[in-house]
Amino acid sequence: MGVDPGVASTGYGVIEALDDELTLVDCGIIVTPVEQEHGERLRHIHEEISLKLAHLRPDVLAVECIFHSKNLKSLVDVSEAIGVVTLAASQQNIKVIKYTPLKVKSSIVGFGKATKEQVQLMIQHLLGLESPPKPHHVSDALAVAICHRNLGC
Amino acid sequence: MGVDPGVASTGYGVIEALDDELTLVDCGIIVTPVEQEHGERLRHIHEEISLKLAHLRPDVLAVECIFHSKNLKSLVDVSEAIGVVTLAASQQNIKVIKYTPLKVKSSIVGFGKATKEQVQLMIQHLLGLESPPKPHHVSDALAVAICHRNLGC
Repeated sequence: MGVDPGVASTGYGVIEALDDELTLVDCGIIVTPVEQEHGERLRHIHEEISLKLAHLRPDVLAVECIFHSKNLKSLVDVSEAIGVVTLAASQQNIKVIKYTPLKVKSSIVGFGKATKEQVQLMIQHLLGLESPPKPHHVSDALAVAICHRNLGC
Repeated sequence: MGVDPGVASTGYGVIEALDDELTLVDCGIIVTPVEQEHGERLRHIHEEISLKLAHLRPDVLAVECIFHSKNLKSLVDVSEAIGVVTLAASQQNIKVIKYTPLKVKSSIVGFGKATKEQVQLMIQHLLGLESPPKPHHVSDALAVAICHRNLGC
């Protein structure tokens, strides 16, 4: 299971990898309303991710993480969301591995500066989907899941 | 209840404020072992803070937060810890308010560049303690609790 975390919206994507074949199991987005109090938004994300983890029991939770940002406020927000997602996995004894966007893109498209559209097209191809996965939070979540399968820690 | 969060050690301090009088109710530090897996450390912090909140039922959880740091890795770590602490409070319907270190120091010692020792001495005086509260994570937690009482949001 891959997760692209954020307080406003967190994407998730679950894939099954059997030999060389990848299959999409589930994907979606957890959106928290702007008017919701900050702590409630984190609770919302924690609850939804916990439900998905309990239901789907992935082997690993691969999380897209950032360690720098021009906007430190958004770095703080993303990190808080990563904190509650990591907690949810730990509470269910599911291992968490973090990958930077650069690593994710390199492992899928072959170079770290690939555009979102290039990544989406490659995911469509790899999972045999009829159209590219959208929105970006969902394709990024699927990308980090595929990245983990490709790098196989 | 004030909290000074961190993955390695999280300080907490609970005070009671009746009219002009401040009393120390409880304080301490949650230390997570370095060899513990990152997610387990977050779970440890979430569990301990949840227990304290359930037991002491503070009106508010005041959290010392940072929005910039020379070390972005530590900003990310602190933010992840803040995420699980905020979640713990939200799960028990306790309001969370964040204060920057500058605001905390200004509200207690009168200027934002006060040293930790000056803050500790002032806390000792305000709470009528026999010695300054230590270590720093505990005094910082008490400081943010007193800051909230002084600024009274």
